Amino acid sequence: MTTGMPTNPLTSMPKKVDVYEVGPRDGLQNELRTLATEDKARLIEALILSGLKRIEVSSFVSPRWIPQLADAEKLIGMLPRRDDVIFTALVPNLKGLERARAAGLQEAAVFLSVTESHSQKNINKSVAEAISTAREVAREARAAGMRVRCYLSTVWGCPYEGLTPVPRVVEVVKQLADLGFYQLSLGDTIGVGTPGQTAEIVSEVSKLVGLEQIALHLHDTRGTALANALIGLSMGVTTFDASIGGLGGCPYAPGAAGNLATEDLVFMLQGMGVATGIDLGKLVEAGELAQELIGRKLAGKYLQAALGEREKQAHRSRSAVS
Amino acid sequence: MTTGMPTNPLTSMPKKVDVYEVGPRDGLQNELRTLATEDKARLIEALILSGLKRIEVSSFVSPRWIPQLADAEKLIGMLPRRDDVIFTALVPNLKGLERARAAGLQEAAVFLSVTESHSQKNINKSVAEAISTAREVAREARAAGMRVRCYLSTVWGCPYEGLTPVPRVVEVVKQLADLGFYQLSLGDTIGVGTPGQTAEIVSEVSKLVGLEQIALHLHDTRGTALANALIGLSMGVTTFDASIGGLGGCPYAPGAAGNLATEDLVFMLQGMGVATGIDLGKLVEAGELAQELIGRKLAGKYLQAALGEREKQAHRSRSAVS
Repeated sequence: MTTGMPTNPLTSMPKKVDVYEVGPRDGLQNELRTLATEDKARLIEALILSGLKRIEVSSFVSPRWIPQLADAEKLIGMLPRRDDVIFTALVPNLKGLERARAAGLQEAAVFLSVTESHSQKNINKSVAEAISTAREVAREARAAGMRVRCYLSTVWGCPYEGLTPVPRVVEVVKQLADLGFYQLSLGDTIGVGTPGQTAEIVSEVSKLVGLEQIALHLHDTRGTALANALIGLSMGVTTFDASIGGLGGCPYAPGAAGNLATEDLVFMLQGMGVATGIDLGKLVEAGELAQELIGRKLAGKYLQAALGEREKQAHRSRSAVS
Repeated sequence: MTTGMPTNPLTSMPKKVDVYEVGPRDGLQNELRTLATEDKARLIEALILSGLKRIEVSSFVSPRWIPQLADAEKLIGMLPRRDDVIFTALVPNLKGLERARAAGLQEAAVFLSVTESHSQKNINKSVAEAISTAREVAREARAAGMRVRCYLSTVWGCPYEGLTPVPRVVEVVKQLADLGFYQLSLGDTIGVGTPGQTAEIVSEVSKLVGLEQIALHLHDTRGTALANALIGLSMGVTTFDASIGGLGGCPYAPGAAGNLATEDLVFMLQGMGVATGIDLGKLVEAGELAQELIGRKLAGKYLQAALGEREKQAHRSRSAVS
């Protein structure tokens, strides 16, 4: 090879990745409009039809905290049972876990922040207290034969403390590594991450847990979610959280982007030959349904491009007829 | 290093990149509203204030083609002359070049498509005819002491032919490599590019021309522009075209994303420690002005996040006072 020739950084990509759909939970909990339980079930069924196998459907936190998701039990009761689809829900503590178990879930997810101020303001606990709760939940869940995932918030940055130092992330992950979580989902909660930082986080965390135990939960608030996902992917991460249509919005700007849109992620992966088992056309249908139910245009770019293209074609056909 | 440890794909990044601002041309030519010449000048002055050094200000095509840019001479006459800022404009042929020269520009840009159907439908010429025109313009421009850039459209995909085979791109670039263009700007005109394809394009084109001669002109129609830019960057590309606020829209969906937003690009680069000489805060001010002038919210995510955050802070201050 000639000196100075660029080398392709994408030579050892995973052949297959898991997309973990968080729209019905992380998306809907941040939307102003509360959907009817039947409509949530319809949306989840559309997501299943697209080929998604892991769907976070609700949260067992107090209805006072998140009224949008107060119907978790009822919703789960309405969902189809399929051996190939895993439903999961957020649980804040042992009581939430018990509700999830009673509702028939085989998987649950706990959450904590890596920064103190966010932990205090978000759940009114120190990080140490939150880790202690997470440990309890993990132990009980495993005793009940359930899988548990752990969300880490503010891994890239914190609304109160600015950019999060990677050693802080490492410190928290060290305390979580042996608690029995099948996966740690690293969250760019406020969407401030850039790729160099992502590479450093993945590099450091993968010294403590296996790459297959790492998921990236990226928010697209400042447009960098897919670039961050790409870096994770190129380093061997194989699970990415995403939300249909980017459902969920942004804490700062109504109508602006929050969660990485599932379609944008799947479009990129498909273009790179990385298998997801997901049908992009059916995902667009699910996104269209999400827009209808929520009553506004969603931020997902692939979704808007696909719907716009369809409209243009329909217009052409009408013009041809008239 | 332990086997299986992920390697950071971002180890040999450029320290510095050039951002080539196309908003006043590629942006405004795709907006329905035509701005007053004075307003275009105000926008360009705001862009200069942010630190941008290369700005494509208009187009010397026939006003019948692009009425939005019919005032190129008048606009250029109104702009401040600064030694450190290069203005440029699109020229379709020798006549356009002559207008650009007479207006006092020291740089111009020609354009052609790499796919036949797009070439025919867009400029009513075959690719070979367009290359022949580009050759003439390049020769004349250099004789007049002007620098010339060449835009290649439909490098990733074509609205009529689907994904563009990389050998087709190579075939066209081969014919352009020795014509004296200081830069070839490779365009993902319809925003269908994904990173694997980008890596292949950059790899192949850089066998024909130097990396410093390659610019990437990415559209964010399906959300992949920054991920594509990141791959180009990691392979050593140092010039990226972008449009303030993502000005320009998408050919398929009104209000949806078209050009990569300058702020999103600069935010990512800044986060990675890559120097651009651009002040992100001032870029947001220019984006805000662009929104005011064009009369709609622009698609740029960083812009929306920054404006939303400011609004939230203003709201907090008001609450604190009352």
